[in-house]
Amino acid sequence: MLNKAGRDIPSVIPGFKEVKLYNGPFAANPTGRVVGPKITVNKPRSEKILKSIDQAIEATGLKSGMTISFHHHFRNGDYVLNMVVEAIARKGIRDITLAASSLTSTHDAIIPYIEQGVITAIETSGGRGKLGELFTSGKFLKKPVLIRSHGGRARAIEAGEVVIDVAFIGAPACDTYGNINGIEGKSACGSMGYAMCDAAYADQVVAITDHLVPHPLYPISIPQTNVDFIVEVEAIGDPKGIASGALRISKDPKELIIAEYASSVIEYSGYFKNDYSLQLGSGGASLAAAQFIKEKMIAQGIVGSFGVGGITAPFVEMLDQGLFKTLFDVQDFDIPSIDSLRNNPNHLEMSASYYANPHNRGPIVNKLDVVILSATEVDVDFNVNVITNSNGVIMGASGGHCDTAAGAGLSIVVAPLLRGRLPMVLDKVHTIVTPGETVDVIVTERGVAVNPNRKDVFENLKQANIPLMSIEELQQIAYDLTGKPESIPVTDEIVGVVEYRDGTILDVIRKPV
Amino acid sequence: MLNKAGRDIPSVIPGFKEVKLYNGPFAANPTGRVVGPKITVNKPRSEKILKSIDQAIEATGLKSGMTISFHHHFRNGDYVLNMVVEAIARKGIRDITLAASSLTSTHDAIIPYIEQGVITAIETSGGRGKLGELFTSGKFLKKPVLIRSHGGRARAIEAGEVVIDVAFIGAPACDTYGNINGIEGKSACGSMGYAMCDAAYADQVVAITDHLVPHPLYPISIPQTNVDFIVEVEAIGDPKGIASGALRISKDPKELIIAEYASSVIEYSGYFKNDYSLQLGSGGASLAAAQFIKEKMIAQGIVGSFGVGGITAPFVEMLDQGLFKTLFDVQDFDIPSIDSLRNNPNHLEMSASYYANPHNRGPIVNKLDVVILSATEVDVDFNVNVITNSNGVIMGASGGHCDTAAGAGLSIVVAPLLRGRLPMVLDKVHTIVTPGETVDVIVTERGVAVNPNRKDVFENLKQANIPLMSIEELQQIAYDLTGKPESIPVTDEIVGVVEYRDGTILDVIRKPV
Repeated sequence: MLNKAGRDIPSVIPGFKEVKLYNGPFAANPTGRVVGPKITVNKPRSEKILKSIDQAIEATGLKSGMTISFHHHFRNGDYVLNMVVEAIARKGIRDITLAASSLTSTHDAIIPYIEQGVITAIETSGGRGKLGELFTSGKFLKKPVLIRSHGGRARAIEAGEVVIDVAFIGAPACDTYGNINGIEGKSACGSMGYAMCDAAYADQVVAITDHLVPHPLYPISIPQTNVDFIVEVEAIGDPKGIASGALRISKDPKELIIAEYASSVIEYSGYFKNDYSLQLGSGGASLAAAQFIKEKMIAQGIVGSFGVGGITAPFVEMLDQGLFKTLFDVQDFDIPSIDSLRNNPNHLEMSASYYANPHNRGPIVNKLDVVILSATEVDVDFNVNVITNSNGVIMGASGGHCDTAAGAGLSIVVAPLLRGRLPMVLDKVHTIVTPGETVDVIVTERGVAVNPNRKDVFENLKQANIPLMSIEELQQIAYDLTGKPESIPVTDEIVGVVEYRDGTILDVIRKPV
Repeated sequence: MLNKAGRDIPSVIPGFKEVKLYNGPFAANPTGRVVGPKITVNKPRSEKILKSIDQAIEATGLKSGMTISFHHHFRNGDYVLNMVVEAIARKGIRDITLAASSLTSTHDAIIPYIEQGVITAIETSGGRGKLGELFTSGKFLKKPVLIRSHGGRARAIEAGEVVIDVAFIGAPACDTYGNINGIEGKSACGSMGYAMCDAAYADQVVAITDHLVPHPLYPISIPQTNVDFIVEVEAIGDPKGIASGALRISKDPKELIIAEYASSVIEYSGYFKNDYSLQLGSGGASLAAAQFIKEKMIAQGIVGSFGVGGITAPFVEMLDQGLFKTLFDVQDFDIPSIDSLRNNPNHLEMSASYYANPHNRGPIVNKLDVVILSATEVDVDFNVNVITNSNGVIMGASGGHCDTAAGAGLSIVVAPLLRGRLPMVLDKVHTIVTPGETVDVIVTERGVAVNPNRKDVFENLKQANIPLMSIEELQQIAYDLTGKPESIPVTDEIVGVVEYRDGTILDVIRKPV
């Protein structure tokens, strides 16, 4: 069956109850109610603290066939997921569904447990390295890996499509009755935005902390009313992997050209005025673009309303300099951002649902004017792939890509026109993560293409000193240099499913030959 | 059928699907899941602002037979409830269930609409004045008024026992996309604790504001993700009725004696030590007790952990003086408290669920050491009535009474032994709001009685210079002065139902003869 993005989706996919086809970014009409956790009782002065992860697994009654969840704020420094999966394996529990907000290469450590059948299904924003290869191999997992955006995951949790039996929350600071924040302790990660959803909807919630403090801890990111058990451990993460220092701005000439064009696109788009709002990616070109945008804002005396992210130091600098009034923060990438969330009352923590859930009464992406996003590849229909590489292997993450593209007034995708000998503008991307209908401008170092459905933006950009051209012209430049690339040969076996943020199936990932 | 509190509850009550008998404060074993709102979509850049309450009623599709909700943070200064009910009546809508967090005498204005059948069922923490008389008359309403505690209401909403079709939120400050707080604007009321539950669980949410500000407003008490529509009006309340200046400490000698005894009870109870936590009522004796407790804390160098409430100026002073580290605030009673919530980061807003919902993973009352509560009457089984007066007429509110009594390590009830010619310690209170099993000490100006199930407290209090006696002795003193009072003659007609915080029926209110 062809969906609205033109993708051929089988009517039956192993492990999926129902295959709902993507039918346009705002076509879904959801029904039903938000589904909360099982109702429980916690008696006065009850003890929530347990001695070990093993004890917590016993206390929750976690057993084979259940679903567990994790958040990825510790990024490549995370110890929690690996510790818990190991403990589960030791107990002989099998057939677990792992619903993580995302997975990084540090989680390669769980590969043996996937191979042994401890984990047999995975839902995540993405996968990298050996895990991504394992997903793409189609081996071991009982059903295709399910890729969700951050907003889509929040939606799926609230809608009861993901029923989390036990959420394990890495808690940088936790008090003795379960109030949690991410801004204190040696493993501070800043915002707890993704974990907030897990904690609010999981049937049982275990906080794992290396910084247990007296009750009450505040500010409170996750409240005691969500937390069943608390386990203190030596370390929940490696600070060096959790947050970097402020990233250095790119010196790559190609990235700098892209950044300059992208900032000109914003400047002339019609959106660049007082009280505009902005989301930046964390890639090199995005961060470089931040610098140019900052200069333009200062030069023209423009003060923005709010920034959104995935927060990085350039945004924090703009907040500190009064160029934006507020930041909404679902995750922090560096130490300056964590410090800012801790110290600056204008820097606000938000949940993944507030950030991007398409089925509440209005996430912050709905008020976003401009977003800059990256891409692995795009196509002439403006579809974007950020999940599979040029061999068709899963090596990226959906993140908030499709959420912000759908929400923002102006969505700008930045990418080099060529990666090595490979063109980046294709006839069809190998995997669609963000549908072209929601992508407005594609910026490369050789040219800038505007989606034909945004004639208003195209007209505005004629004033900008940028190489404006059609997407086909852009593609031709690439093809002239490299020749037309072969499409990636695949088998019929479906190893991944890309769920659009509204719960429909946008694309499937087939096992490469 | 006799319930565990010894009350005779009919097996069928008009308008109640099922009659679940109270069986002890922690006997209920809830099943099922938390029930969230209907899932909806709010598209990017959608307009939430409507021109009038009438338009909002139309936009929500509110129709006869539905349930609407309100919060009572504006107390006697509230304009919102009356405005909305009037508008509903004008539209010819009838048979509405009014689920308010509480009702005050300013809501006497809705009596005509009850008489006309616009409102035919009421769920509330209490009722006063003419409304209380109307409830007790058994006229007009199709079923008995349902009395819930603040924690019980949060529980009932989360459990889906109250399904709110439309919540109307009086918003002291609201931005153009629905972010709300209570600390700004001319009608600032401070904490929005009760409204948070309505907003999170109602199928549709209408914010009514007299202070509409640009997006994004922060701090955020109720998020845009909960709000469907926004209506700007001239005024949502009368500031003089919303919050008083700091209340003056009582000069009533009887209240001062009670306050002194109550503070001695705390001092010698075994709970008075560093990091203890405290909730105070807003009555005269409670506020006077605060003064004595403060002096004792300073004298003994004791620093408490947190205060809870219903916040009043004496608590704010203790916070400012470093006698408590934190306040948890579900509602503010005076201007100093509102100012403190706005300005002091150690003064935390909380929802009614965080405050007192017995069926989440641990409300703050579960960590409460000491609470001082008032009473209309108590009985020799330590049961407390705060809802009906000496004529059996509804004239009070349940509030957080039974919630804090159940949660606190030490629950102290303060009341005069006599009111006029009427004794306050009876064989049986007319209406039980808080079961005696959860009441530890009763303090009057003539004597202090300790619940026999708290022998530990009784032993400790022997050191205190207070007239310790049995509850029967206390009763005898009263009866010697006034004679044994007649019980209030009642009919068989049930006009009110007192639901315990766990959803069981603790007592019924019968129409007086």
